[in-house]
Amino acid sequence: MNNDNLREIIGKEYKCLDHGFVRLIDVMGDDSAIVQAARVSYGRGTKTVLEDRGLIRYLMRNRHTSPFEMVEFKFHIKLPIFVARQWIRHRTANVNEYSGRYSEMINEFYVPEQDQVRTQSRANKQGRSGESLPDEESAKVVEQMAAVQQFLYDEYTGLIERDIAREIARINLPLSNYTEWYWKIDLHNLFHFLKLRMDHHAQYEIRVYAEKMADMVKQFVPLAYEAFEDFTLNGKSFSRLELLALKHLIVNGELLDEDIEAIGLKGREAKEFKEKLDYLTDL
Amino acid sequence: MNNDNLREIIGKEYKCLDHGFVRLIDVMGDDSAIVQAARVSYGRGTKTVLEDRGLIRYLMRNRHTSPFEMVEFKFHIKLPIFVARQWIRHRTANVNEYSGRYSEMINEFYVPEQDQVRTQSRANKQGRSGESLPDEESAKVVEQMAAVQQFLYDEYTGLIERDIAREIARINLPLSNYTEWYWKIDLHNLFHFLKLRMDHHAQYEIRVYAEKMADMVKQFVPLAYEAFEDFTLNGKSFSRLELLALKHLIVNGELLDEDIEAIGLKGREAKEFKEKLDYLTDL
Amino acid sequence: MNNDNLREIIGKEYKCLDHGFVRLIDVMGDDSAIVQAARVSYGRGTKTVLEDRGLIRYLMRNRHTSPFEMVEFKFHIKLPIFVARQWIRHRTANVNEYSGRYSEMINEFYVPEQDQVRTQSRANKQGRSGESLPDEESAKVVEQMAAVQQFLYDEYTGLIERDIAREIARINLPLSNYTEWYWKIDLHNLFHFLKLRMDHHAQYEIRVYAEKMADMVKQFVPLAYEAFEDFTLNGKSFSRLELLALKHLIVNGELLDEDIEAIGLKGREAKEFKEKLDYLTDL
Amino acid sequence: MNNDNLREIIGKEYKCLDHGFVRLIDVMGDDSAIVQAARVSYGRGTKTVLEDRGLIRYLMRNRHTSPFEMVEFKFHIKLPIFVARQWIRHRTANVNEYSGRYSEMINEFYVPEQDQVRTQSRANKQGRSGESLPDEESAKVVEQMAAVQQFLYDEYTGLIERDIAREIARINLPLSNYTEWYWKIDLHNLFHFLKLRMDHHAQYEIRVYAEKMADMVKQFVPLAYEAFEDFTLNGKSFSRLELLALKHLIVNGELLDEDIEAIGLKGREAKEFKEKLDYLTDL
Repeated sequence: MNNDNLREIIGKEYKCLDHGFVRLIDVMGDDSAIVQAARVSYGRGTKTVLEDRGLIRYLMRNRHTSPFEMVEFKFHIKLPIFVARQWIRHRTANVNEYSGRYSEMINEFYVPEQDQVRTQSRANKQGRSGESLPDEESAKVVEQMAAVQQFLYDEYTGLIERDIAREIARINLPLSNYTEWYWKIDLHNLFHFLKLRMDHHAQYEIRVYAEKMADMVKQFVPLAYEAFEDFTLNGKSFSRLELLALKHLIVNGELLDEDIEAIGLKGREAKEFKEKLDYLTDL
Repeated sequence: MNNDNLREIIGKEYKCLDHGFVRLIDVMGDDSAIVQAARVSYGRGTKTVLEDRGLIRYLMRNRHTSPFEMVEFKFHIKLPIFVARQWIRHRTANVNEYSGRYSEMINEFYVPEQDQVRTQSRANKQGRSGESLPDEESAKVVEQMAAVQQFLYDEYTGLIERDIAREIARINLPLSNYTEWYWKIDLHNLFHFLKLRMDHHAQYEIRVYAEKMADMVKQFVPLAYEAFEDFTLNGKSFSRLELLALKHLIVNGELLDEDIEAIGLKGREAKEFKEKLDYLTDL
Repeated sequence: MNNDNLREIIGKEYKCLDHGFVRLIDVMGDDSAIVQAARVSYGRGTKTVLEDRGLIRYLMRNRHTSPFEMVEFKFHIKLPIFVARQWIRHRTANVNEYSGRYSEMINEFYVPEQDQVRTQSRANKQGRSGESLPDEESAKVVEQMAAVQQFLYDEYTGLIERDIAREIARINLPLSNYTEWYWKIDLHNLFHFLKLRMDHHAQYEIRVYAEKMADMVKQFVPLAYEAFEDFTLNGKSFSRLELLALKHLIVNGELLDEDIEAIGLKGREAKEFKEKLDYLTDL
Repeated sequence: MNNDNLREIIGKEYKCLDHGFVRLIDVMGDDSAIVQAARVSYGRGTKTVLEDRGLIRYLMRNRHTSPFEMVEFKFHIKLPIFVARQWIRHRTANVNEYSGRYSEMINEFYVPEQDQVRTQSRANKQGRSGESLPDEESAKVVEQMAAVQQFLYDEYTGLIERDIAREIARINLPLSNYTEWYWKIDLHNLFHFLKLRMDHHAQYEIRVYAEKMADMVKQFVPLAYEAFEDFTLNGKSFSRLELLALKHLIVNGELLDEDIEAIGLKGREAKEFKEKLDYLTDL
């Protein structure tokens, strides 16, 4: 890092949700560390041929992932427990979390903004729909949620005051309670995390964090991030059958539903293919 | 597996806590798989010298861990979320967990037995003491905990009935709510898990699971488990200073507190050393 | 496994290269184990909607990788050291290798078939071209290689006979010397291995092993393998710029070199895009 | 890093063996990063109680390994291939190695110093004894080894000149040929590497590297390294049977061979126990 702007990012709390934050603690390496590691593999042969940007794009495109592992990011994050539970599934990171056995849990809980109090999505079994409840109703939900949280925290402190062990007292605290951790990961695995957690299928509350982190990462490894964006975030994969359907479309200038089905794309696969076509058309 | 008793273990639910269980789904390999893998490393040279039991003990003693990785266990486990949160820190396992985004959370919650409603330990910052509350008081705590849980589940189903997205509705469910998962791990990492989670510093509620799993594992890899017990579970490590203190004790026939301090063991280190001596004396 | 054909595969040596082999030692799980693990995540909701094949394809398509980790394969492999050096880069597997410190290295070395004695590829910096040397010349190369190997093994046994430590005596043995190991990996990571090592950029000598293993794996998890083939092996990814180029082609019915360049695809990226188009056209 | 001495270490080549080196490229974190991560787990409760050194020793002693994972080291290393083959078994590191497919292998080979041309150890099946060959004989061995290496490099360049693909031409190069790589690892796993590779059972040629790296690491994380030395490097583990034998010795003031056997320590286990006693007595 040779830049005042970058130095300003480090250590600063970037707010997420109502009480959470992401704070970048330390970074090892930058775009040139990726290039440095790649050049040791490819040796003298490539030095003159490929410029740094070209090399980084080549690595990303061809899934030569190990040079991206040479860069490391460490964050301090405050987040609701239900978000932490999704996050921890990324096993390639190092974590130190606040412990409810050692210390008392804090009196901070996530309450969704009214706009995020949405109905169950029909299309997406795992998510919320685009529709919020009517204002009045969602206001009530949010108010009631906050009231429940305060009730639970009072229950908790009641048990603590009676000297019940912290590790027992906390078991009725809700998943909306905030925790915090240090989280360290290499750039390759961070990109994987960002891809999954910035996706529109990811729960909104983790997406907020992922997007904030992406904003930071982009500034420390601009070339790598650009490649990630072009090839991974904004690219699309097509199966063999989908390639056949694309071929049909290119050759015939049109692609009817019956063509798609004749090619063998049915049900969800057909639906997802058409979504990709729409994405492509809208580019 | 060549044994009816072993076959009977597989698939059976072994109850843990009030609503949980451990169920062994599948096993790959046994003691002979460890020996088989070790022999490929050591080649012809060792075949005649070391019997299987001796070889397994040698591997365990000298931390030659890779042959133990050749055995794999897969479990189906139902457990409270706060236990799952400790468990998931073992990153070397494969996991598929029930999802509160896809499905409704179930109406089952962990309530400690009265005897486990204990006060905060003074000696052990992370745990409960040996003392339960008076019967009457702990009965009330337990009753109140259960009542809170039912209240929270009613809140949850209330939100679900109003068609609020599952992923939002569940955020005020407590850490005592049950979840379940498939969990697959190799024997080396399973031993590491068991060592940490059968330890008396581990929270009681995860220890219950670890002990049940140890009972099963022991039957599938009896020689490896015996070695694990002798060298890891029931062994002790001594630091350089502790070895000096042992030497003093052996040479002089006694070891006074001032000797321990003169050697450099102070505070917690002195205290932990004396606990080890007590353990040794009580063997 | 409920099938005689599968049982016959286990334990059998499938020859690879001149002295190597792949031998499947054990398998944990099959297609239904993938489905079983996925269903625990998705809960009751999906059971009726998606059939097994549909579910497995959905998982593969959407990179829900953890259910594939619930299946485990263990192989016994004999391979030249230079192949082992590429292979070991896959860090998610468990390995026990023959040790040249414990045992004498064996008198077996890989000599390429004449047809594989090829010139350096110009297009592919890391590989051989499609052109073999003239028969006579390649015969000489092969003969000389074998002679050098025998000379080196004589040197080695000469040192061993003079009681030089094995760990020193072996350092001038060549990378063509055969070694062997046990290798255990879960299906998700095995697919990743197969994707990289069956690719035409992989060195021929490791591809031979990967293809043999793919033949076996296919029989144990036919649905998962089919999905792997359709989405991963035979699918293609397109970057944002490539999608723009596809759109141009679809909309305009043609795509000139200057269009490709105008879109921003230059140099290697343009070349690789055209290769993908050719692949698509030839489907 | 706030220290000129530390800055001087970074980037400098520290020679290992005849042509190898270790070069520290970058470091993330120091002792205070370990403490920072630990404090987030233990929360407010511990801040005043334990000083930094005490906390780090507590973490090391009780195998609370995750705070040590918050420090990361990156090295550039040049090493013989047979050393690289042992090294790569540590799977938790990130690696980018020089590729003999992309680039020509260099004309540098490891030749042991005469003093290291030793006979096979009888006690240690995997290693060399303490005895070198007679000067004259070892001189001849060393000379012959170097001659073989030059012969092999000539063979290699001969094939390269005939335009044989690099990936084929290199297969008869010996394991003594030098390669290089970037290698990045967190401190917890680096300590594990150092413990295994500084051990007297490790091959001399990898020990040379491990010791050099330990010298560097010590300066960047002095408190953590001291704890590693006291608890891990210079500590000893005793099995349950060994603890019984220690108890016998303490209680009775003596421990005869028949006592050891009566306790159940036989063969290699008895031998290794006596070695530990000798170590303790010599402290």
